[in-house]
Amino acid sequence: MAMSLDEIVKQIHPVRQEWVEKAREHTAHLAIPLRALGRLHDIAERVCGILGTLQPDVAAKAFLVMAGDHGVVSDGVSAFPQEVTGEMVKNFLRNGACINVLARHAGAEVLVVDMGIIPDVDPGPPEGRNQLRICKVGRGTGNIAKGPAMSRLQAEQSVLHGFKLASDLFAAGTQLLGTGDMGIGNTTPSAALGVALTGTSVNEMVGRGTGIDADALKMKREIVRQAVEINRPNPGDGLDALAKVGGFEIGGIAGCILAGACHRRPVVIDGFISTAGALVAHSLCPAAIDYVFAGHCSQEAGHRIMLEHLGLEPILDLRMRLGEGTGAALAMGVIEGAVRVFREVLTFEDAGVSKQSG
Amino acid sequence: MAMSLDEIVKQIHPVRQEWVEKAREHTAHLAIPLRALGRLHDIAERVCGILGTLQPDVAAKAFLVMAGDHGVVSDGVSAFPQEVTGEMVKNFLRNGACINVLARHAGAEVLVVDMGIIPDVDPGPPEGRNQLRICKVGRGTGNIAKGPAMSRLQAEQSVLHGFKLASDLFAAGTQLLGTGDMGIGNTTPSAALGVALTGTSVNEMVGRGTGIDADALKMKREIVRQAVEINRPNPGDGLDALAKVGGFEIGGIAGCILAGACHRRPVVIDGFISTAGALVAHSLCPAAIDYVFAGHCSQEAGHRIMLEHLGLEPILDLRMRLGEGTGAALAMGVIEGAVRVFREVLTFEDAGVSKQSG
Repeated sequence: MAMSLDEIVKQIHPVRQEWVEKAREHTAHLAIPLRALGRLHDIAERVCGILGTLQPDVAAKAFLVMAGDHGVVSDGVSAFPQEVTGEMVKNFLRNGACINVLARHAGAEVLVVDMGIIPDVDPGPPEGRNQLRICKVGRGTGNIAKGPAMSRLQAEQSVLHGFKLASDLFAAGTQLLGTGDMGIGNTTPSAALGVALTGTSVNEMVGRGTGIDADALKMKREIVRQAVEINRPNPGDGLDALAKVGGFEIGGIAGCILAGACHRRPVVIDGFISTAGALVAHSLCPAAIDYVFAGHCSQEAGHRIMLEHLGLEPILDLRMRLGEGTGAALAMGVIEGAVRVFREVLTFEDAGVSKQSG
Repeated sequence: MAMSLDEIVKQIHPVRQEWVEKAREHTAHLAIPLRALGRLHDIAERVCGILGTLQPDVAAKAFLVMAGDHGVVSDGVSAFPQEVTGEMVKNFLRNGACINVLARHAGAEVLVVDMGIIPDVDPGPPEGRNQLRICKVGRGTGNIAKGPAMSRLQAEQSVLHGFKLASDLFAAGTQLLGTGDMGIGNTTPSAALGVALTGTSVNEMVGRGTGIDADALKMKREIVRQAVEINRPNPGDGLDALAKVGGFEIGGIAGCILAGACHRRPVVIDGFISTAGALVAHSLCPAAIDYVFAGHCSQEAGHRIMLEHLGLEPILDLRMRLGEGTGAALAMGVIEGAVRVFREVLTFEDAGVSKQSG
């Protein structure tokens, strides 16, 4: 029987520090000047702590790209028409989008999830059927500038769908999960969640998203302000905030993160939207963030603020602001490299290399 | 017949901006919000400019790991004994070092070059013979705190060796070359080159290298100051600076960079030592830097100053300070990802995705 959100949260525990310590000790024996690979060591040792092993492996990688539509698009918050959400879902199934290319490059499979887009997407060729999961919580959210995005029940469903999808992948052998998103307009609910759950001002949190101009920026800030004022999301209740100003795909991403923490598997989050999902997961269960790696820092203004709130340091900073999971896919290369160094580099003794003095 | 350094420099021309422009135009047609992948676009377009094509490919990757010994080690500038240079060369041939692991992860082959280490290294198993190149310009440099590192002729030889090795790799099909280094004590000559060729003060340029303490740092600064004062390297003559305060492996790296520029192939440099090599190449031929990608920013204090002097922005910043080529190897993953996005992502038209307004 499926677990409730409360039951899931009860099963989440912090990363085991004793394994992180054991891993640090192993690192000190490698034929490398002490800590000379900097963050690569920290990354590998956290993976050891997550997995509870000194033989970490993250070769089996997968992405869940969560798609949803957003009622607030009718207020003109995006430079793209709403149809693009469904069009891009089809593009994912055709393997023609950036996340397909970068996941292929990282050696990760890509599953696309209809968490609540407006159209019903034809999965296209037979392989498309294997890549698409339908978990439609609704046909687009309500307009958050006028009322709640969804009901509390729908918010819970979206998180539980994400949890189930990710749990199934882990059960099938996935060792490193990346989160991605697609949803025209979804920087607006993400920013509203950022404001609600970090307490940051609207002006600091809201940037230009995927390329809007100064007038549109002003309007977007006004809409986020309105969304928060009208809905009054509870800053101490991630599920309430998700229901009032969030999105279906954001809830799904929160569920992926809870699944990683529950099953003790590392999850790499992407940019602004995935991190809004992490804020929801963090609000439900702070310890879940122990299992999260921040793939990159987006150009979206509020992203760094969200990451700091979560205590996460991004791996990459390449002025990307696309979403889909693209930053997480590139970061997977670094994480896997770090893990391979930990496992494959010879020790001073085995390599016959003299140690440093002092 | 082998070319002279003057002949090589004459054959180097800036990257063709018309190809960069054509590449930018192609990027604008991809089903991606305008410039939303940030630096990935810039990287891919520069590769197009370097190669003169809209079908860039960097799948065939290789590393030249240049090794040399340094007379200045007798003054105690390193926490490791000098024997470690040769021991690490053997470790490279055993495929047990960090660069072996990270190059394997990136899909790059590794060639190790004895540019002038003190011992003669037994290449070990048969595969070791294929991996090792002997281009011994000397058995370690002179102590730069007391006199020149090498003669001007040796400096030229070291650059020409690097040029020949890299040119042979390009002729054999290498599409992306990474530079790496091994040489106990080589942050000291690199810092001296940094001071000589960028005009930065010793205190700004000299940091702790691979883990020395405050007393050792003070001494290292004193030694770099001495090296520059005694030898008076000519700030306008990279070959003079290389001869007076450089190292054999640093000259080899400069040669790799000139080869990339001469044969129009991209070269990814690693950290502090590789960038000292780039300073030498830049001094000989500023346009050569057009063909260079800076893999990462090292924790070595002066590295960022060197990169700024060259107008290069590092791809990664992970607090690494190992050398060997490790930062360049991880960055190769990003560069190849950028190139694959450029080639493999569908256009708005082919993907059936609506464009943004305005």
